[in-house]
Amino acid sequence: MRGPVVIFGTGLLGTSIGLGLSHRGLEVLLSDPSPSALSVAVDIGAGRPLHEQPGVWPELVVVAAPPDVCARVVADALERFPAAVVVDVSSVKGAILRELQELSAKNHLDLSRYVGTHPMAGRERAGAVSARGELFNAMPWVICPHQGSGQGAVQVAQNLGLDLGAVLSRFSPEEHDDAVALVSHLPQMMSSLVAARLQEAAPHALSLAGNGLRDVTRIAASDAGMWVPIMAANAEPIVTILHQLHEDLIKLIGTLDAPAAPGASLAMAKVISAGNAGQARIPGKHGGPAQPYAWLSVLVDDEPGQIAQLLTEIGEIGVNLEDLRLDHSSGRNAGIVEISVLPAKLEPLIEELTVRGWKVLQ
Amino acid sequence: MRGPVVIFGTGLLGTSIGLGLSHRGLEVLLSDPSPSALSVAVDIGAGRPLHEQPGVWPELVVVAAPPDVCARVVADALERFPAAVVVDVSSVKGAILRELQELSAKNHLDLSRYVGTHPMAGRERAGAVSARGELFNAMPWVICPHQGSGQGAVQVAQNLGLDLGAVLSRFSPEEHDDAVALVSHLPQMMSSLVAARLQEAAPHALSLAGNGLRDVTRIAASDAGMWVPIMAANAEPIVTILHQLHEDLIKLIGTLDAPAAPGASLAMAKVISAGNAGQARIPGKHGGPAQPYAWLSVLVDDEPGQIAQLLTEIGEIGVNLEDLRLDHSSGRNAGIVEISVLPAKLEPLIEELTVRGWKVLQ
Repeated sequence: MRGPVVIFGTGLLGTSIGLGLSHRGLEVLLSDPSPSALSVAVDIGAGRPLHEQPGVWPELVVVAAPPDVCARVVADALERFPAAVVVDVSSVKGAILRELQELSAKNHLDLSRYVGTHPMAGRERAGAVSARGELFNAMPWVICPHQGSGQGAVQVAQNLGLDLGAVLSRFSPEEHDDAVALVSHLPQMMSSLVAARLQEAAPHALSLAGNGLRDVTRIAASDAGMWVPIMAANAEPIVTILHQLHEDLIKLIGTLDAPAAPGASLAMAKVISAGNAGQARIPGKHGGPAQPYAWLSVLVDDEPGQIAQLLTEIGEIGVNLEDLRLDHSSGRNAGIVEISVLPAKLEPLIEELTVRGWKVLQ
Repeated sequence: MRGPVVIFGTGLLGTSIGLGLSHRGLEVLLSDPSPSALSVAVDIGAGRPLHEQPGVWPELVVVAAPPDVCARVVADALERFPAAVVVDVSSVKGAILRELQELSAKNHLDLSRYVGTHPMAGRERAGAVSARGELFNAMPWVICPHQGSGQGAVQVAQNLGLDLGAVLSRFSPEEHDDAVALVSHLPQMMSSLVAARLQEAAPHALSLAGNGLRDVTRIAASDAGMWVPIMAANAEPIVTILHQLHEDLIKLIGTLDAPAAPGASLAMAKVISAGNAGQARIPGKHGGPAQPYAWLSVLVDDEPGQIAQLLTEIGEIGVNLEDLRLDHSSGRNAGIVEISVLPAKLEPLIEELTVRGWKVLQ
């Protein structure tokens, strides 16, 4: 990309994009309805205020506004900058496009210069103050041209993701919304519903919480401000999947209401094995096939450097670490480190770690 | 404990208990309906075959049989060893006790020598071949005396857990079943139902899977053989909670069916914030209050030793690692390491890591 690039919306995504492009030497101009949000982004080095250079002819406009105002900002940008490609970075695509098409029906818009995109990065914190130019490194960035998107516009949209180090993939807007409804919105909904059941739990009961509950409810800590617009904009695909899950839930409740009835054991087994089958389809490391790795658990004292020491020794032993998790279930000043390795390496590693004095639990 | 200890059932739990007690110098005798399972356990060093010493007078009998046969094995042990304390280690307690009380109604059993227990350890692999004596180190072991359990029997049951390095807690059988229904069985059920939705997903859609989906569906890989008896034995408490979740699900579907209706945005926000509130009640490290830690993400090359090097340097910088997760969403030969630290340490750590050349994404 050559630039200049105009960015509307200096939250986490907009500011990170500005930082990343500025670091590559492109000219970046920023705008935000909140003067203080804009000010933080400028101070961080994400770009200069657009209002200081109102006559700019940008190569690209990035709309990083919330999904409920996104389409209008895209429409305004298409009109104000008649030579620019305009992309958005919302996590829903169909609703944005539909709203743009409605706006264009009233006041013709050149939608050939619009390409919807979705960078899938940046979960933990919101706001410009947490922005980093490297946010998109090695993360997926989905490009969703609509049927009227011009080839040149699609190229510029792709260059944006590539220049920021992302891994590109192409989806139609509808395919995208169905996909994220399944792999992102469904787990969020169910995580929140499960976690909500804990609101009135006795502390004594919660003391038995293990890693299973922690894993299932981890994303229940997500921010309502971010999720309400997503739920509203992608409601239909989400509801379709929730209806299917609802059917399975009703069947399960019926089975458990009569657990000794003929066929009940098989029905219960099918609930678990259907979950096995679905879970096994999730891609493994680097998008490859899901690998059946072998796991071991090592007890470490909660002293600084213990985990680093363990990993260093595993490296010395010559075994590659495929995955790593910490288990917080224990009630004493010790941590459990779960390590996954190739199955063939499991036994030699357990032996060698035990010889070196590590407490291998399993 | 003095021993001898008789263990019925040489699967993962029974064999691990045998190993742990044998390592402490206690005499352990083993029994299992499967001669080969027994043989493996004996070969591992978990104890000697009970049939070689049929006249033994054990201090304690541990019944580590599946929940559907557990009560009968407990009843037989109470009769065969009239001076022994008998415990079971099933993950459900009420069903076992009820069945024992029914058996006792026909043929009087001395239930004062019976104490139900539940060691909460050992998830990843089943079978004697994966057993380790350290399995219970620092893990919760719940003691569930019924109203007729004798004080001495409870003492012996507690000693078993303590000798194996576990952290004890006390629940009534009913409290226990309600607690595990909520913190263990509910997340398993919902994880399986979410994962089942992936069975017919297009691979293209699955390529967008991030850590949220992976976290929610991790335990969907669980074993049906282990879970069907648990579901059957704890069906009632599980159904009670599933009915509550079902109500919330119906409400959510209704809200998403009309996302622009008055009150819909608030209803959506309440789904997320109820999940926030429940998740925040899960205990933090070592059973303490849930701490709000700060997270950062570091991109590392997928080379051996990189993660160890990163952790070593974080230790050199002098910051304590509170939690650690790996993110597999990236599509290239790189991994993302998510580190959590005390909030006050976040900025200094990000600065120092960046100076040392690490790619901090966020």
